[in-house]
Amino acid sequence: MIFCAGKTVEHIKGIVAKMLEKGENILGTRATSEMLEAVKKLHPKVVCNELGHIFGITQNEIQKTESYIAIITAGTSDIPVAEEAAVTAEFFGNRVERLFDVGIAGIHRLYDKIDVIRGAKVLVVIAGMEGALPSVVGGMVDKPVIAVPTSVGYGAAFGGVAALLGMLTSCTSGISVVNIDNGFGASYIASMINKM
Amino acid sequence: MIFCAGKTVEHIKGIVAKMLEKGENILGTRATSEMLEAVKKLHPKVVCNELGHIFGITQNEIQKTESYIAIITAGTSDIPVAEEAAVTAEFFGNRVERLFDVGIAGIHRLYDKIDVIRGAKVLVVIAGMEGALPSVVGGMVDKPVIAVPTSVGYGAAFGGVAALLGMLTSCTSGISVVNIDNGFGASYIASMINKM
Amino acid sequence: MIFCAGKTVEHIKGIVAKMLEKGENILGTRATSEMLEAVKKLHPKVVCNELGHIFGITQNEIQKTESYIAIITAGTSDIPVAEEAAVTAEFFGNRVERLFDVGIAGIHRLYDKIDVIRGAKVLVVIAGMEGALPSVVGGMVDKPVIAVPTSVGYGAAFGGVAALLGMLTSCTSGISVVNIDNGFGASYIASMINKM
Amino acid sequence: MIFCAGKTVEHIKGIVAKMLEKGENILGTRATSEMLEAVKKLHPKVVCNELGHIFGITQNEIQKTESYIAIITAGTSDIPVAEEAAVTAEFFGNRVERLFDVGIAGIHRLYDKIDVIRGAKVLVVIAGMEGALPSVVGGMVDKPVIAVPTSVGYGAAFGGVAALLGMLTSCTSGISVVNIDNGFGASYIASMINKM
Amino acid sequence: MIFCAGKTVEHIKGIVAKMLEKGENILGTRATSEMLEAVKKLHPKVVCNELGHIFGITQNEIQKTESYIAIITAGTSDIPVAEEAAVTAEFFGNRVERLFDVGIAGIHRLYDKIDVIRGAKVLVVIAGMEGALPSVVGGMVDKPVIAVPTSVGYGAAFGGVAALLGMLTSCTSGISVVNIDNGFGASYIASMINKM
Amino acid sequence: MIFCAGKTVEHIKGIVAKMLEKGENILGTRATSEMLEAVKKLHPKVVCNELGHIFGITQNEIQKTESYIAIITAGTSDIPVAEEAAVTAEFFGNRVERLFDVGIAGIHRLYDKIDVIRGAKVLVVIAGMEGALPSVVGGMVDKPVIAVPTSVGYGAAFGGVAALLGMLTSCTSGISVVNIDNGFGASYIASMINKM
Amino acid sequence: MIFCAGKTVEHIKGIVAKMLEKGENILGTRATSEMLEAVKKLHPKVVCNELGHIFGITQNEIQKTESYIAIITAGTSDIPVAEEAAVTAEFFGNRVERLFDVGIAGIHRLYDKIDVIRGAKVLVVIAGMEGALPSVVGGMVDKPVIAVPTSVGYGAAFGGVAALLGMLTSCTSGISVVNIDNGFGASYIASMINKM
Amino acid sequence: MIFCAGKTVEHIKGIVAKMLEKGENILGTRATSEMLEAVKKLHPKVVCNELGHIFGITQNEIQKTESYIAIITAGTSDIPVAEEAAVTAEFFGNRVERLFDVGIAGIHRLYDKIDVIRGAKVLVVIAGMEGALPSVVGGMVDKPVIAVPTSVGYGAAFGGVAALLGMLTSCTSGISVVNIDNGFGASYIASMINKM
Repeated sequence: MIFCAGKTVEHIKGIVAKMLEKGENILGTRATSEMLEAVKKLHPKVVCNELGHIFGITQNEIQKTESYIAIITAGTSDIPVAEEAAVTAEFFGNRVERLFDVGIAGIHRLYDKIDVIRGAKVLVVIAGMEGALPSVVGGMVDKPVIAVPTSVGYGAAFGGVAALLGMLTSCTSGISVVNIDNGFGASYIASMINKM
Repeated sequence: MIFCAGKTVEHIKGIVAKMLEKGENILGTRATSEMLEAVKKLHPKVVCNELGHIFGITQNEIQKTESYIAIITAGTSDIPVAEEAAVTAEFFGNRVERLFDVGIAGIHRLYDKIDVIRGAKVLVVIAGMEGALPSVVGGMVDKPVIAVPTSVGYGAAFGGVAALLGMLTSCTSGISVVNIDNGFGASYIASMINKM
Repeated sequence: MIFCAGKTVEHIKGIVAKMLEKGENILGTRATSEMLEAVKKLHPKVVCNELGHIFGITQNEIQKTESYIAIITAGTSDIPVAEEAAVTAEFFGNRVERLFDVGIAGIHRLYDKIDVIRGAKVLVVIAGMEGALPSVVGGMVDKPVIAVPTSVGYGAAFGGVAALLGMLTSCTSGISVVNIDNGFGASYIASMINKM
Repeated sequence: MIFCAGKTVEHIKGIVAKMLEKGENILGTRATSEMLEAVKKLHPKVVCNELGHIFGITQNEIQKTESYIAIITAGTSDIPVAEEAAVTAEFFGNRVERLFDVGIAGIHRLYDKIDVIRGAKVLVVIAGMEGALPSVVGGMVDKPVIAVPTSVGYGAAFGGVAALLGMLTSCTSGISVVNIDNGFGASYIASMINKM
Repeated sequence: MIFCAGKTVEHIKGIVAKMLEKGENILGTRATSEMLEAVKKLHPKVVCNELGHIFGITQNEIQKTESYIAIITAGTSDIPVAEEAAVTAEFFGNRVERLFDVGIAGIHRLYDKIDVIRGAKVLVVIAGMEGALPSVVGGMVDKPVIAVPTSVGYGAAFGGVAALLGMLTSCTSGISVVNIDNGFGASYIASMINKM
Repeated sequence: MIFCAGKTVEHIKGIVAKMLEKGENILGTRATSEMLEAVKKLHPKVVCNELGHIFGITQNEIQKTESYIAIITAGTSDIPVAEEAAVTAEFFGNRVERLFDVGIAGIHRLYDKIDVIRGAKVLVVIAGMEGALPSVVGGMVDKPVIAVPTSVGYGAAFGGVAALLGMLTSCTSGISVVNIDNGFGASYIASMINKM
Repeated sequence: MIFCAGKTVEHIKGIVAKMLEKGENILGTRATSEMLEAVKKLHPKVVCNELGHIFGITQNEIQKTESYIAIITAGTSDIPVAEEAAVTAEFFGNRVERLFDVGIAGIHRLYDKIDVIRGAKVLVVIAGMEGALPSVVGGMVDKPVIAVPTSVGYGAAFGGVAALLGMLTSCTSGISVVNIDNGFGASYIASMINKM
Repeated sequence: MIFCAGKTVEHIKGIVAKMLEKGENILGTRATSEMLEAVKKLHPKVVCNELGHIFGITQNEIQKTESYIAIITAGTSDIPVAEEAAVTAEFFGNRVERLFDVGIAGIHRLYDKIDVIRGAKVLVVIAGMEGALPSVVGGMVDKPVIAVPTSVGYGAAFGGVAALLGMLTSCTSGISVVNIDNGFGASYIASMINKM
C-alpha cells in the first residue's frame, strides 16, 4: 500500500518500480492525475480510477469472493471517496456493489434498492453534510455497517465534523466509523469481514 | 411569557399574580416542580405539564385552528422538549398532533404515520443524538419543518452539538433550526405559520 | 435545482441541456462566472446574477404572489448571499423587497424602512460578524424571520460561527436559522410560507 | 481587592481583618452569602450586595465623580454581573447610572433611555445569549463601550461563548471586551476612563 | 435492549416486566445500582454487573460461539466500559476473553498475552487518555478491531475527545471506532462479526 | 472610514473620489498594494502605509493632542497590525509613540522603555502567539490598556485564538480586548480616551 | 505510584498495604481527605499534603540532590498543583525551592527572587488564566522550564485551555508543557533532569 | 536564531550579513528554497537542509557532546520536522542519532532499535496522526522524552490537534510537549538537557 499524498511523482515511480520487482501487489491511494499517468506507463495491467485518486496493480491474482460488499453514498459529491473504497475492496478480491446518490432526502431511492442492500455481507456507507445515511441503512439490515464521513459540504459541515459526529452518535446499532474521507480504511475492514 | 429558569418560586408567583390581575394569558417555560405546584394554587384553570416543565393560563379564550402542527420526536428522551413545544402551540390556539418515538433507526414506524405527517400545515421535528429525523421527515413533505436539536445523548453528542450541526447541514430543503432544547421557540414560529 | 459547486462547466451544461429538454424550470446555485457564461448560451431567457453566483431558467411561468418576502442584509459584504436568496425567491414566483446595508451599528437606517419591513409576510435576514440583525428585526415585526449567518468577517468571526451562534441564541422569538451562507435554503422556506 | 472564589470563609475573614488594620479600602468579589455574613460582622460600614456577590469597605473616603458610568444590561438574568460592576464602580468613587433589562428584542425600551445613555462618559454594557446590546448601544453614542459577555443562556450560548464572539466581532466601532461575567474588570477600566 | 439512563426505577421495572411476559431476552445498559437491585427481584436468572452498570435476562438460551471476542483495556479505569462490552457480548452468545490493564506505557504486558490476542476472531479495544492501544493491538493482528474511546482522564483528555481523535486518525489499518464509552455498541458489532 | 477587504480597486477609487468631493477626511484599512497605488494618484496628500495596508487623507486638519497613545508590539511580525493602529490614531489627531519588538521573552527591552510606557495616557498593546505582553505592560502602568491579539504564530496559536484567550483571561486589571488583528478598532477606542 | 482519583478508600488502603509489604516507596496523587486520613494510619512515616491531595511513604531513603528544582506559581490558586509537584519532587529525592504567587501582573515580585530562580537546575512553572509566567521565567534563565497549565480561572479560561495554548505558543525557547493540572508529571520529568 | 517564516529573501540576507559581521553563529528555521539558495552564497560553510527548511552557519566551533540525542519519527511525512530538530541539535554541538519511520503500527521496527533508543541521554519523538509514539518510547526508557506533534494527517487529525492532545494525555510518565511542528523548540530543550 502506498499513501501518495505529499509525495513527488518521481518518489511514487521509484516505490512502484521496486515493488513490481519484488512481485508484490500494489495499491496507491490519494494519487494525483500526474501520478496516475506516470504509473500507467510502468505496467500493462494498472487499474486507474481518476475519480477515486487511486490505482492498483495485481501481480498475483486473488480469488474473488462470492459474497459482496455494498458501497453506498448519499450524494454525487461523495463518489470520489466511494471509488477509493470500491477499488480498494476489489483490489483485495471482494465482489462490490455500488449504490450511489441514494441519500435520505428522497428515501424512496434507497428503498428501491433494498434487495441489493440486504444481500450484502457488510456495507460501507459514505455521506457528507449531516451524515445520516448510515443510521437509515443500519436500520434496514442486520449486518455490520462501516460509516465514512466525507468533507463534502460548507458552513456548519466544518469539513466533515458534522457528519462524523452524526455517525458516532447514531441511534442505530451496528455502525462503526472511520476517519473523514477514509474510503480506503473502510474497505480494508469490510474486506476482512467479507472474507470471514 | 415567563422564562422561569434561574428565578425563585416567590419571584414566579409574583409575576404570575401581577399578570393575572391584568387579565393576560400566561405561559411559563422551564418551570421546576415546585414552581408548577405554586402556580396551580393561583388560578383554577392552570394547564401544567410536568414532563415539559411548562404551565399555561388562558384568561382570554383563543379560537382553535383547523389546520394542525405535527410535533414529532425521534426518541422517548426527546419528549420533555416535545411537550414544551406542544403545550406552547396549544396555548397559542393551535391544534397539535403528537408523534413520539418514530426515529430513523426503525423507519417503518415513521411511514406508518405518513398520513398524519402529510396532513400537517407545519411540522416541529425534535431529535437528539445525530439529529437526522428532520432530514427524513423533510423529504416526505412539502411543508416548512422547524427542527429542534436536543441535548439528549452522551460522548460525541456534545450536549446537542452533533444534532445541531446535523440539522443545519441537512441535505433536505425546507428545514430551519432553533437553539438546542428550544421547544418553545420552535412552536412560537410554527404557530405564526399555522395561523396564516 | 442544481448545486453547481465542485462540478465542471461541461457537467453543468449537460444537466441543464437535459432539464431543458424535459421542459423543467431550472435553478443553479454556487455557479462560477464560467458556468454562467456557458449557461447563457443554452437558452434565451436565462436569468443570471453574477453577485449571487446563481442562474434561473423559467420554462413554465409561475404566477407572482401579491404578498412579498423582505430580504434584508446587515452590510454590503452580505449581498452575494442576499442575491442568492432573492433570485431563488423570485424563481419560485415570490415578490421580493430588497433592503441592503441596514445593520445595527446605525439603527436609524433600519427604522427608516419600517413600513417595508412590517409589510412583508415573511423575512429573510442576512448578517455576518456578530449576526445581530435578525434579533432587532424580529423585535419589530410579528412575522417569521429566517436568519442566515454569513461567513463575512475575520478573526473571532470564525467563518460565520459567531453569527450562527448569535442567531441561534437570539433573545427575540420568531427566529429560525439555516446554514452559514445558505441564501437558497432560506428563500426555499420563505417561499413555502409566503405562498400559504 | 480580594477574589473570593475558591477561598474559605475563615481565609476571607483573615485577609479582611489584616487589611482593616492597615487602614486600606477593601473590595471583595465572587463572595458567597456565608462570606458576606461573616464580613458584615467585621466592620460597621460594609457595603454588601447579595445579587452581585460583592462587598466593599471604604475606610478612606474617595470623592465622587461628577461624570457617570452607565451600566446597562440586556436582561434580568444579567443583573448579578451588573451589580458586581456597579458596586465596583461606586467603590472607586464613580457616579453610576443603572439601566437594566433594555435588550434589543424590544429596542424601544432602549430608546426611551437615550438621554441617560448619551449623558454617560463611558458605558459598561452587559449581555448574555447573542450579546448584541453593545453593538446597538455603541451605535447610539460616541463614547467608549466596555462590553461584558455573560454566561446566561443555554444550548448554543455555550456558557457565554456566543456572546463573547458576538461582542468581539461587533460591526460598531468603539467597543472593547472583557472576560465572560467579568463585571469587576469592566468597571475597573471604566473607572480609569471616567476619572480622566 | 433498554437504555436505562434518564429513566426512573419504576419505568425500568415496567418495561422489564412487559418484556418478561413476552418471553423475550432482555439487556439493560447504563443501569444504576437501584435499578439493578429492582431488576434482580423480577426474575431468578438475572445477570447483574455492577461495574458495567448492566444486566441481562436470557429466557431463550443462545448457543455459545466457539470463536471468541477479545475485550482489551488500557487501564483499570476503563473496566466499567469493558464490562458493559463483555456482558453485552456474552448476552448475545459470544465467548469472551478479557484482557484488562495492558496499556502501552508498559508494552511488555501486552506482548505477554499475544496468543490470546491473536486467537480472537474480532477485538474490542478500550482506552481513555491518548487512546493509543487500538493502534498497537491493530498492528499485532490481522482481524477487525472495534475501538472504544473512554471518558477517562482529565485536562486535555476533554472527556474522551483526545482518545476519540487518536483512534480515528490511527495509522494502523483495520480499526473502526464507536462513540465515547459505548461498550454496548462495540460488542453489538463484534458479535455480528464473530458469528459470521 | 472604508474597510477595503473584498472590494475591487475600481470600487475603492469610486468611494474615495466621492468622499473627496464632499470634503471629508478618509481612512482606508486592509488595502492591497494596488489600492494604495491607485489612491495615491487621487490626491496630493495621501498618507500611505504599505506595512499597515492603510491610507489616510486629511482634508480638514485636526489639532494634534499633547498626550500620546503608546503602541507596543511583542514581535516584528505584529508590526503590520501596529501600523494599522498607529496610522489610525494619527489620522484622528493623536500623538503616537511606537515601541516595537519588546516582547516578554526578553523583558529587559521592555523595562528600558518604561518612561515612554508610563508617560502614555492610554496604550494599545499588540501580540500574537501566547499574547502575554498586555498583562505585563498592564502591571507596569495605571492606564487603560487596549489589547490586540494577532494571527501571528502557527500550530496551537490557532490563528490568534491562543492570544485572544490569553488576553481575555489576563490576571492584570485594566485590560480590554478587541478582535484578532483589529488594529483600527483598538486605536479608535484609544483615540476616544486620549482626547478626553 | 498510585493515581487515586476515582478509586475507593478501601481500594487505596489495599494497594498501599500490599506495597508496604513489598517494601516499596509509595506516592499517591489526587487523594481525597478521607484517603489521606486512612493512609496515615497505615504507616508511621506518611508524608501527607492536604493542599496537594498527595501522600508519600519512603521505606528506602533516597539521597537528596545538591542541585534543586524551583517550583514557581503565578497565583495562590495554583498552589494545590504546585504542592503536588513539590511533594513529588521531594519524594524522588530532589531539593525543592518553592516560589508561590509571583505572577506577571506585578513582575517586580518575580525579580526580587531572581537569584533563587537562576540558581535552579530545572524549573517547574505553574499558572492558570493566561498562563504567561513560564514565558517570562524562561526569558530570565538558560535552564529547561517545565510548564504546567492549571484549570484555575473562569469564562474564557475554559478550564485551563487558555493557559495550555499560551504555554505551547510561548515565544520563549526552552519551555515544554504537560497536561492541565499535572503537577506530578512535571516533577517526574524535572527530577529526571535534576539528577543528571 | 532567525525565524524566517513571513520574511522576504532580502530581509533574511540582510540579517545574516549583519550577524556574519559580528562573528556570531547563525541558525535559520522555516526557510524557503529561495532563502536557502540566497544564504548559501553568503558564506562558504553554510549547512543547508532542504527537507527541514533550515540552515546553520557556525563561525565559532562548538565541541561535540559524547552523549547523544535520539530523534525519532513515526512516519516518513514527519521527517521535515525531524530534520529541523536534528540540524538544530547539531548546530548546538550535540551528537544526534536519527531513527525515522518506526511508528507503532509495526512496533517490531521500534524494538529492533532498542539499543539506540536506550543509549540516548534525551529523546525527541515526533509523530502526527494519533501521536502515540512518544507514549510507547517513553515506556521503553527512563529518560526525558520531548514530544513533537506534527500537522501530518487529514480529517480528524485537525492539523496536529489529535496528536497534540494524545501527547498531553499520555499515560506514560516522563513526556513533555512542544507546539505542533516545533522541531526547533524540542531540540533547544533537548540540547540544554544533553549538555548537563
